[in-house]
Order: sequence, then structure tokens, then C-alpha cells
Amino acid sequence: MDISKTSRLSLVEQVVSQIESLIQSDTWPVGTRIPPELDLMKQFDVSRNTLREAIRALVHAGLLQTKQGSGTFVCSSSILGAAFYRRIKKADLLETLEVRHALEREAAQLAAIRRSEEDVEKLRNCLGSCQAAVQNKDRQQYAEADIQLHKAIVQAAHNSILSDLYEHMTEALQISVQNLVDLTTDAGFHEDIHSQLVTSIIDKRADQAMDAVNHYISEFKETLHMEE
Amino acid sequence: MDISKTSRLSLVEQVVSQIESLIQSDTWPVGTRIPPELDLMKQFDVSRNTLREAIRALVHAGLLQTKQGSGTFVCSSSILGAAFYRRIKKADLLETLEVRHALEREAAQLAAIRRSEEDVEKLRNCLGSCQAAVQNKDRQQYAEADIQLHKAIVQAAHNSILSDLYEHMTEALQISVQNLVDLTTDAGFHEDIHSQLVTSIIDKRADQAMDAVNHYISEFKETLHMEE
Repeated sequence: MDISKTSRLSLVEQVVSQIESLIQSDTWPVGTRIPPELDLMKQFDVSRNTLREAIRALVHAGLLQTKQGSGTFVCSSSILGAAFYRRIKKADLLETLEVRHALEREAAQLAAIRRSEEDVEKLRNCLGSCQAAVQNKDRQQYAEADIQLHKAIVQAAHNSILSDLYEHMTEALQISVQNLVDLTTDAGFHEDIHSQLVTSIIDKRADQAMDAVNHYISEFKETLHMEE
Repeated sequence: MDISKTSRLSLVEQVVSQIESLIQSDTWPVGTRIPPELDLMKQFDVSRNTLREAIRALVHAGLLQTKQGSGTFVCSSSILGAAFYRRIKKADLLETLEVRHALEREAAQLAAIRRSEEDVEKLRNCLGSCQAAVQNKDRQQYAEADIQLHKAIVQAAHNSILSDLYEHMTEALQISVQNLVDLTTDAGFHEDIHSQLVTSIIDKRADQAMDAVNHYISEFKETLHMEE
């Protein structure tokens, strides 16, 4: 009986891994409703109990979400990203800002080394959206454009662990970023630094890209400090 | 029935959170065998099914481990740390090294700002162990002392998210570090840089502490590059 228990557990683990792969490979992108139980039992060749336990494990891990009456949906593209999101939601803002600093500084450095022509185009577009939001004095639009720009930089770093960690970082920070934007008298307060960051990445100047990150993170920290 | 399903799920979530708190607060440190099922059912005031589902969720999350015939044990102090460990085990070495760079550079900078007198003592001891291992030409001892030193630096940064992320980073890297140490002709190849790192943190010179991290990470990258 002990042996059958072990092998069932490892069977559940296998189904968990298979579902995780389907999600990570974008076969089931975020937002997808997963197929009905009977189809999945056939697809993975497992019993109802094994399938249900795997799905529950993925719900607890934050990868899937069950909505009453409408099914089970993909809500995160990686277990690591989901765990990081939960941890950050509970953390204090200064700690989160320090981790953001670590990730964004590394991402800026790597992006300056590895960005493709496609990345360059995306970065230019994101920067344009930020600048448009400043001109329109639209803070909501600015907050969204800001997040898209930072995500594009992390993508340009071409490191999949950094991308997973960063996936929900911005959502967790969105409210605090909104607060910080509200605090500042001028919505355009770090537009220059965004330009400097993007230009440095495009020109492959890694040290200047990192300087730009250091600059806006220390501005954030100062704003935070003023708030205390 | 839908409603009872929801509340049972949230009850499981509550038990998961409570157990997570017991582990994080070191009431149940890593290595602890958790109490018998009946005791836990009483303690959390839940049914056997709810408790079992919570425990299975924590097993899948990598926080608990069930050993046949001997019970269920705590094997990680945070869900984030466990998720990070699993992710890193599957990742390629260069990506992992880049993330390590991000975390250790930030940790070195913060440690130089925040280290307590207690941290200073611990850092001095760890550095001493590294140096002793070099003198003994004992590579195994060196690899272990090296990991303890880097953990002590992350602790001295006093950022709990960084600590969680870093908890298993070293275990995941241990084999690769061992390989890298084996590759170098001289086991003491970065002893000078360890000294510089620790001294900078003790003297509160954050920029020099980060320079030291940049230096040994680029040495690692070069070694890796030579291997390709």
C-alpha cells in the first residue's frame, strides 16, 4: 500500500509537470479555460482522483484558478512567478523595491548586451507610449505604459528565470507605483531617466543602463522615505 | 454544493497559510517532523480531508516532504524558496549565474549599509573558514565554507525576500560551484576577492562590495565560457 501511495504521488507530480509545460509553452496561455475533466483524464491517461489532485495542487500553487460555475482557468505562466507574487503582496514596500532594483539592474545590463532589433523596436514603442501619457497628463495611462516598458526591458534581457520572477512583480507593485506617481508633483518626473535607460540599451552601453536604474530606484526610495 | 466547495477550498488555504506561518516563524524549523494527523485536526479545527489536502498542497509546493514509514517533514522554510529551487534545477547554468549575480550584488550593497555587529562577527568567522580550507587545500571544505559566507552576506542585507530567494540557491548551485572549483588550477583563486567583499561590507563601502561581486561573477562566466 505504501508503494502504491508513492507511485500515485509521483503520478500526480507527472500530471502537474505536464500541465505546467502546457502553460509555459503557451499551448495554454494565461486566461485559457482548461479542457473538461474527461478529456484531460484521457489525454494524461490517469484516474479522476489523480487528475483532481494535480489540478488542486496547481490551484494552490497559483497557476490555475477555479471560478464557480465557469471552469478552471490559467492565471499565471509559472509556479515561480505565482509564488513570487504571493510573497511580494505580503512584503513591505521597501523590501520589494530592493528586490525590484536587483532584478531591473541585472535586466538592464543584460538587455544592453543582448537586445535584438525586434527588442529595440518594442522598446522605442513603449518609450513613445510613456511620453504620450506625460503629454496627455494621463496618470493611469502613464502607469500602464511604465509597466509595459519595464516588462519589455526584462524580455530584452533574454533570461527566462528573470522573466518568470518579473511576470507578476509589476502587478504587485502597480498599486504602490500608482501611489508613488500620485505623490510626485509632476507625472513626467522620470521621463528623462526612461529615455536614458532605453537609449543606453539600444546603444549597448550597459553601465549607463544600470546607472539609469540606480537613479530611478533611489528616487523611489527617497519618495518612500518622505512618506514615513 | 458550489458554496460548500468554495468554503472548503478557502479552509484548505487557511490551513496552508497557518502551516506556512509555523514554518516561517521557526516554530517548525526545516527538518522537523510535523505532529500526527489527529493532533493537527484538533489544532486547526478541521476535518481529516481538509488537513490532508492542505498537507498535499504543501508537499507539491516543496515545503513538506513525506517519507514512507517515518512521517512528514519540513524541507524548506518558504514556498518561494522551494519554487525558486525547482526552477533553478531545470535552468541552464548561465541563466542561474545571472540571477545569482542580481541577488548577490544587491545583497552586498545592502549588507554594507545595514550589517550589525553580530553580522560582522559572523562574516569574519565565515571568511576565516574559507581561508582555512584554502590552506588545507580541502576543496570540499572550501565549497561548504564558500556557501556559508554567501548566505551570511545575504542575511546581513536584512531583506526577507532576498533571504527566501537565496535559501536554496546555493544548494542548486553547489554541484556547479564544485565543478567550477575543480576547473580552476588553484582552489584559492578568489580568496582575495572574498576578503575584499567582506572588508568592504564591514567598512560600509557599498560600491566596493558590489565591485567584488561583479569581479567573481565575471570570473565564473569566463570559466563557463572556456568550458563551452
